[in-house]
Amino acid sequence: MNAPFAARMDAMKPSSIRELLKMTERPEVISFAGGLPAPGLFPIDDIRVAAERVFAESGARAFQYGVTEGVSTLRELIVAEMASRQVACSAHDVLITTGSQQGLDLLGKIFLDPGDVILTETPTYLAAIQAFQCFQARFLPVATDDQGIIPDAVDELAASDKLRFLYVIPNFQNPTGRTLSLERRKKLVDIAQRRNFVIIEDDPYSRLRYRGEHLPPIKSFDDSGCVVYLSTLSKTVAPGFRTGWVVASAAIRDKLVIAKQAADLHTSSFDQLVLERYLRDFDNRQHVDKVCAAYGERYAVMDEALRQHMSDGYSWTHPEGGMFLWVSGPQTLDASSILGQAIENGVAFVPGADFFPGGGGRNNMRLNFSNADPESIRSGISRLAAICAAVQ
Amino acid sequence: MNAPFAARMDAMKPSSIRELLKMTERPEVISFAGGLPAPGLFPIDDIRVAAERVFAESGARAFQYGVTEGVSTLRELIVAEMASRQVACSAHDVLITTGSQQGLDLLGKIFLDPGDVILTETPTYLAAIQAFQCFQARFLPVATDDQGIIPDAVDELAASDKLRFLYVIPNFQNPTGRTLSLERRKKLVDIAQRRNFVIIEDDPYSRLRYRGEHLPPIKSFDDSGCVVYLSTLSKTVAPGFRTGWVVASAAIRDKLVIAKQAADLHTSSFDQLVLERYLRDFDNRQHVDKVCAAYGERYAVMDEALRQHMSDGYSWTHPEGGMFLWVSGPQTLDASSILGQAIENGVAFVPGADFFPGGGGRNNMRLNFSNADPESIRSGISRLAAICAAVQ
Repeated sequence: MNAPFAARMDAMKPSSIRELLKMTERPEVISFAGGLPAPGLFPIDDIRVAAERVFAESGARAFQYGVTEGVSTLRELIVAEMASRQVACSAHDVLITTGSQQGLDLLGKIFLDPGDVILTETPTYLAAIQAFQCFQARFLPVATDDQGIIPDAVDELAASDKLRFLYVIPNFQNPTGRTLSLERRKKLVDIAQRRNFVIIEDDPYSRLRYRGEHLPPIKSFDDSGCVVYLSTLSKTVAPGFRTGWVVASAAIRDKLVIAKQAADLHTSSFDQLVLERYLRDFDNRQHVDKVCAAYGERYAVMDEALRQHMSDGYSWTHPEGGMFLWVSGPQTLDASSILGQAIENGVAFVPGADFFPGGGGRNNMRLNFSNADPESIRSGISRLAAICAAVQ
Repeated sequence: MNAPFAARMDAMKPSSIRELLKMTERPEVISFAGGLPAPGLFPIDDIRVAAERVFAESGARAFQYGVTEGVSTLRELIVAEMASRQVACSAHDVLITTGSQQGLDLLGKIFLDPGDVILTETPTYLAAIQAFQCFQARFLPVATDDQGIIPDAVDELAASDKLRFLYVIPNFQNPTGRTLSLERRKKLVDIAQRRNFVIIEDDPYSRLRYRGEHLPPIKSFDDSGCVVYLSTLSKTVAPGFRTGWVVASAAIRDKLVIAKQAADLHTSSFDQLVLERYLRDFDNRQHVDKVCAAYGERYAVMDEALRQHMSDGYSWTHPEGGMFLWVSGPQTLDASSILGQAIENGVAFVPGADFFPGGGGRNNMRLNFSNADPESIRSGISRLAAICAAVQ
């Protein structure tokens, strides 16, 4: 049997993060490679009580088919969460998705024809590249600095008549940890409205701020429906439930619902009801405070260890939240080429090149600090620095 | 904001089943429209114990990100289930999907370019039409009789060089309730191997046989990897978990894994572990026997009520399992046009035309018998027959 695959599959390669995660399952490897929340902090006892209440009170409904839009009481809690993020919306505007990742897939489906153009930060989230590659989009990476994506650079590239959307992660970006400034958030909305394109605002991390003040989402400046906002319960509760959400204008939401119905009918009824019950009956804000405190400490330990061990010629970002920081080495560094050696020496990271849809970025590394305890972080950074020093 | 949508969205309309389900939420409507398993039969007590054991024994793993392929112990149980269905495979061949529906979406993704041809039964499953329409496939409906799809008709249409796959539901087909004969199963494999196309065998219902002998799946005759087999725990445990599986050859499976990673990373870890624990610790075979007994009784009641009430000129199928039967009225009947009146009179069904991707079929109705008790079935059929008689 010689199955001919669709043209889109030519562009879709197995993710190197995924292959890496396999290699780093060995317990002796300290992994800064994954994007895993700290499992020791999951609010399992509270989730267990929430699940017991669903069994006792929801009955068969928790196990039956449900509507594609998602459980209405969960969507109402999302509306309240959005209000606390300074976005006014109604339950009708909210679509529950099978993780934020599904939101990306569905947005690709409803917006992208082959050859359509999308703008992204440089670098950008690997799994978003994968989701949009599946629809044979053409990526135009936009220049980015410490304040995030540069609006003038967006405006210049937005002249393409094949442009469909700008994809941006405004808070503690994956992979760099950078945050888009308030002023730029407003400017992006102005440009999108003037140029008539959609902004996909992917915001999984905003609640994980351990320093500084929360910034309002790009969506909060949108009065024309040009911003589609994505978030998730993966980082504030637990990722294993695969439950995220999209907030979009009616026209876009209706198309997303049709696409989701064809994709998986709906997200797990049981998971949605357990999460709804957990959010309703327990203090998730307090839980997130605990997570932020832990991640802030881990970031500080990693920053301190990098200062202590890394040679001259290396710099890194100083995120105020989230799970990642971004190390840039000398231009001569090829991070991919030292990864094998790093893993042999018991430490793993993701080479930066994977996050550049247009190529380049080989002298960078993404380091995750949420899923290792302080002692492991110190030890892992010391190992990593030794390898970096050896190749200089 | 005037968002331009992808070309594929032109073909994707909201499902009339879905709109119907909304109308039939009123408790006074007896609905034969949905495709819902009987919620009163869900093994909730056993699932509750399984969930308690997952909380007690799996810990944080149940809530963390997992591998795209699915939980390995669940995949091993699927291998045993496949063996009992006369298909030999290994855990490596099994991909856990977010319901069978996701299997259809992923198969569309990896196989279909715009204009590619797929063969389907006439009529065929509405949500499969939706899933494949999303990839702008061209449907060639194949002639079908009481024994299922006609192999000679497949062979004739298989000459198209744009043919990518044949989609077929061999057991208690949705919407007709028909079962593909053993001889035809073998013939389809011969044709697929000779003509070099893939058969997608969608088998959600085979365990729901209440009469007659189980037939081996098409996949059991496949020694070349040309058959991709899909099934689900939605009908044998509960659909709310959105957990199904695909068994495919290595080349196809690898592409499906890449596509799934981009679609939702993986299916809910928690749901997979609860289902794994339920299947391991409880007697699901005995549970399914109970479901079959109930559905067999409901089918018999519906068949008897149809005999008693329907006028001459109406005939219907006599499925040996599953959840649906198919009523054909006189050629003058337009089932869509009587639906509104039927709902006003407290009974709902799905008009047949929705299941014909090539048009036609207006004189048919799909009736679901799994989700109404015998008394409601008698009452609903009596109401339906009165409306049918009135329009003659």
